[in-house]
Amino acid sequence: MEQIRSVDADAVFLALPHTVSASVAAEILPRGARVIDLSADFRFRSVPLYEAVYGVRHVNPELAGRAVYGIPEIYRNALRKTRLAAVPGCFPTAVILALYPLLKEGLIEPKGIVADCKTGVSGGGRGPSLGFHYPEVEAGVRPYGLPRHRHAPEMDQELSLAAGRSVTVTFVPHLLPMVRGILATCYATAASKVQGRDVEEAYRKHYRKEPFVRLCSPETLPSTKDVAGSNFCDVAFRIDEKSRRVIVVSAIDNLGKGASGAAVQCFNLMMGFPEDEGLRAAPMFP
Amino acid sequence: MEQIRSVDADAVFLALPHTVSASVAAEILPRGARVIDLSADFRFRSVPLYEAVYGVRHVNPELAGRAVYGIPEIYRNALRKTRLAAVPGCFPTAVILALYPLLKEGLIEPKGIVADCKTGVSGGGRGPSLGFHYPEVEAGVRPYGLPRHRHAPEMDQELSLAAGRSVTVTFVPHLLPMVRGILATCYATAASKVQGRDVEEAYRKHYRKEPFVRLCSPETLPSTKDVAGSNFCDVAFRIDEKSRRVIVVSAIDNLGKGASGAAVQCFNLMMGFPEDEGLRAAPMFP
Amino acid sequence: MEQIRSVDADAVFLALPHTVSASVAAEILPRGARVIDLSADFRFRSVPLYEAVYGVRHVNPELAGRAVYGIPEIYRNALRKTRLAAVPGCFPTAVILALYPLLKEGLIEPKGIVADCKTGVSGGGRGPSLGFHYPEVEAGVRPYGLPRHRHAPEMDQELSLAAGRSVTVTFVPHLLPMVRGILATCYATAASKVQGRDVEEAYRKHYRKEPFVRLCSPETLPSTKDVAGSNFCDVAFRIDEKSRRVIVVSAIDNLGKGASGAAVQCFNLMMGFPEDEGLRAAPMFP
Amino acid sequence: MEQIRSVDADAVFLALPHTVSASVAAEILPRGARVIDLSADFRFRSVPLYEAVYGVRHVNPELAGRAVYGIPEIYRNALRKTRLAAVPGCFPTAVILALYPLLKEGLIEPKGIVADCKTGVSGGGRGPSLGFHYPEVEAGVRPYGLPRHRHAPEMDQELSLAAGRSVTVTFVPHLLPMVRGILATCYATAASKVQGRDVEEAYRKHYRKEPFVRLCSPETLPSTKDVAGSNFCDVAFRIDEKSRRVIVVSAIDNLGKGASGAAVQCFNLMMGFPEDEGLRAAPMFP
Repeated sequence: MEQIRSVDADAVFLALPHTVSASVAAEILPRGARVIDLSADFRFRSVPLYEAVYGVRHVNPELAGRAVYGIPEIYRNALRKTRLAAVPGCFPTAVILALYPLLKEGLIEPKGIVADCKTGVSGGGRGPSLGFHYPEVEAGVRPYGLPRHRHAPEMDQELSLAAGRSVTVTFVPHLLPMVRGILATCYATAASKVQGRDVEEAYRKHYRKEPFVRLCSPETLPSTKDVAGSNFCDVAFRIDEKSRRVIVVSAIDNLGKGASGAAVQCFNLMMGFPEDEGLRAAPMFP
Repeated sequence: MEQIRSVDADAVFLALPHTVSASVAAEILPRGARVIDLSADFRFRSVPLYEAVYGVRHVNPELAGRAVYGIPEIYRNALRKTRLAAVPGCFPTAVILALYPLLKEGLIEPKGIVADCKTGVSGGGRGPSLGFHYPEVEAGVRPYGLPRHRHAPEMDQELSLAAGRSVTVTFVPHLLPMVRGILATCYATAASKVQGRDVEEAYRKHYRKEPFVRLCSPETLPSTKDVAGSNFCDVAFRIDEKSRRVIVVSAIDNLGKGASGAAVQCFNLMMGFPEDEGLRAAPMFP
Repeated sequence: MEQIRSVDADAVFLALPHTVSASVAAEILPRGARVIDLSADFRFRSVPLYEAVYGVRHVNPELAGRAVYGIPEIYRNALRKTRLAAVPGCFPTAVILALYPLLKEGLIEPKGIVADCKTGVSGGGRGPSLGFHYPEVEAGVRPYGLPRHRHAPEMDQELSLAAGRSVTVTFVPHLLPMVRGILATCYATAASKVQGRDVEEAYRKHYRKEPFVRLCSPETLPSTKDVAGSNFCDVAFRIDEKSRRVIVVSAIDNLGKGASGAAVQCFNLMMGFPEDEGLRAAPMFP
Repeated sequence: MEQIRSVDADAVFLALPHTVSASVAAEILPRGARVIDLSADFRFRSVPLYEAVYGVRHVNPELAGRAVYGIPEIYRNALRKTRLAAVPGCFPTAVILALYPLLKEGLIEPKGIVADCKTGVSGGGRGPSLGFHYPEVEAGVRPYGLPRHRHAPEMDQELSLAAGRSVTVTFVPHLLPMVRGILATCYATAASKVQGRDVEEAYRKHYRKEPFVRLCSPETLPSTKDVAGSNFCDVAFRIDEKSRRVIVVSAIDNLGKGASGAAVQCFNLMMGFPEDEGLRAAPMFP
């Protein structure tokens, strides 16, 4: 790769493979531009963890410490000040937004959390492969990435920070016959004495003013169709009193809030633009 | 409904709404024919539980006690002798077959089990409704029936019997853009010191000789596409050592092993026919 | 239906069943508002033809003569002046836009034209019915409305006017497993000595400045995916020298250019607004 | 490729690329086995035509003259005696079966025939490519292979033989979001004075006794869903009196009657087995 000599831009979006992204970011940042990185390179607070999960050496460990994890709902102020945003993976976005308020407020047990996720094919990129060949996908569903998908440690990192205790999410993604969308169905044990109204309040407290998180009305549940083409994340919960389980469901468009939408939202914050600039499109029922 | 005067058949399959089915069965059985019932009327060992779950009075409580639950993998001998088989719901079939060996052998904790299920639309029957209107289903996924779908108590009943202790499954079904198939992803906590080989052995012990349960090879995972059009149930498991979770995945065709296939398998046992008579069709990749 | 007393609006969009629409329009127009009607009531220049095709008496024949057919690419000036626009059916839009320049310029024979159309399910409306029940549609294709769908006379009317001679299109619609989109594949015999460049020139002449008709580059062909969610109509043609056939393919989103988009485009013209106001959304790859 | 030394089989099915297939067949035939070839190598009666269409030199022109085109409905007796069957392409099967009786009986004009075909993705094989990548196919439709797909000359050859005059079909295939199935919608001009009952009679005469061609009842039309997984070809017709067009629709499973099913049917004839041996599976509604 040629060396980058000058950067005539205020900000650069990087959609590159991991390790490549870190190299390019290291060239760009000293030249004055902000970087919104969509790779995994700057998502981890622990460089050794990153290296273990991705099986590579980090190209630029010192830079890793300066990145802000790109979830505005948690890190809005830090994103306003940073020059390097690490846009989360699509699954972590859906799962973290679903569970963050409950762990932050201590309403669920940090142990035994399950995140069963369903994704469309576009999450796998545009490169053709047998697994994404049309006949292999139509009219069927299958899990993959068991038992430890590399998006799990990202969830664990952020949810542990929220809980103030170690959280290990059991995460299983499933490939569905659809293009866009992630639905995360999360299962956790309600903390002692927690009631539905406590859960309701936690979500209101954290998301009431959020421009892109929508709490479903009591009688509805999220569907990926309702967020397709948009930057929205829809969230709903139910409590199964018999098993004392809190079930939280979130839906995003993995090409919107799960990737490029989130990147633009971070960019807006970093640049001091209105946070929803370029992100006001209504969902398009696909 | 007119009274049934005589039954000129050895066996009758009932695919009727609950309560109607019990009435008809009560007419048929005294006339000498066996009954394979696909409704919920005879699936519960507890009539009060049935009445609570379905919100009706049982039409024929004394008959309920004589029915055998139609899972040959558990009740083969009883099915050979009964005159009344209660074919399970499609979700219970997938979940019970996934978890039965592990609970029977004490390899997982009976508490905190999650069954996240994905189903095609044919499970909802052939009657048109907005929820199954093509544009509402294509290219999206949504959960339904939260927090307590009426198939959950069926799972709890059978899995509690297997465990010898009370089991409450947290069960959430999801509607997918496909016609046939159920995939059940089940999450349970491994009992102390349980290893992968213990789990492997339990499945072999219970299913090695089963004609319609296929244990996946170590590198594969079930897909609904692999069982479509057949009476097979494919099963695989993984252990997530970090969270000590056992993840079990099963796949059936809800129109095969999940309903009519299961009914025929019961019928064959009740009639003394080869168990796989009429059920030898290979899956058809849909 | 109650009588309408006053209309506090500059324009009213009517999305009502035929006959109802004409009644309501007759109430609204005298009260000063413009009407953009999406029903069939005002699409026909011949009231007897309308009555024969729809099997009803026209509620308001005198009004029918004052309506302008809502294809801006043909009737832009008239639409600017009218107070009553008849938005075309979705199939006629796709077929008329495909063939209009060739008939207008005399490049194809008016006899023997075939329009083989493929549509998504949303064209059938939101009301559930067996034919649009998800399992009936997924993974299959079937024709319907043979031999004379009621959209055919609309095509014949407009294409005959373009040709200055009687045109009878053989039109067959097919239902496909998708929600949005119409693809029209039109087959016509090239007039004597007509070459590809003549056809090319005709399309450029008529559509070069059109905001919502896009002529595909020579190496590409229209796909409904490329226009989904937009008001665009993509058009391409090929000539099969061996059979002297001109094959024209057009693609629209039936919910965009094929209905509501077209209605807004008409409304903009009638109101003197920029023609693309509210219609600038890029397609969303579904 | 190594030379084949001996063939310990009565018949060999070849599913190989063209040119390779002819080479292998030339090795096998002298060693006594029959060959059922699924490639294009032996489908053409004219070697120069084959060479022009496929852009290669024929590996074994003398063998080409000995092959029988594998449509039992036309060449049953010849297939019983041949040692080399050329199984037709999937599109030619659907189109030839649709039109053969009408051209044979002189009921339609040989000029101006259109065959608008819709196919699932499995016709493109199992090799991943961008065009068959799931997100490129779901929820959309597009034509391809214009203006002269290489299956057209196969149709022309067989339909010209049936008509006793030169027939040039205008053939356009379309890729649909489904796996299995071809629907051919064929448009032809009715010969002078031809009535519906003449067309009906022609189909009955030719197909009444055919085991795998089903004439639809008057009120139904073919759907690919009705033949999926089977060796059936469903056929229906309508006459549009206004345009004097005969519209014929046929449906096959391209993996059944359109390829492997046809191959087995040929094999059965060549071996003297019951023609439907191994082909009795009912369709499976996909």
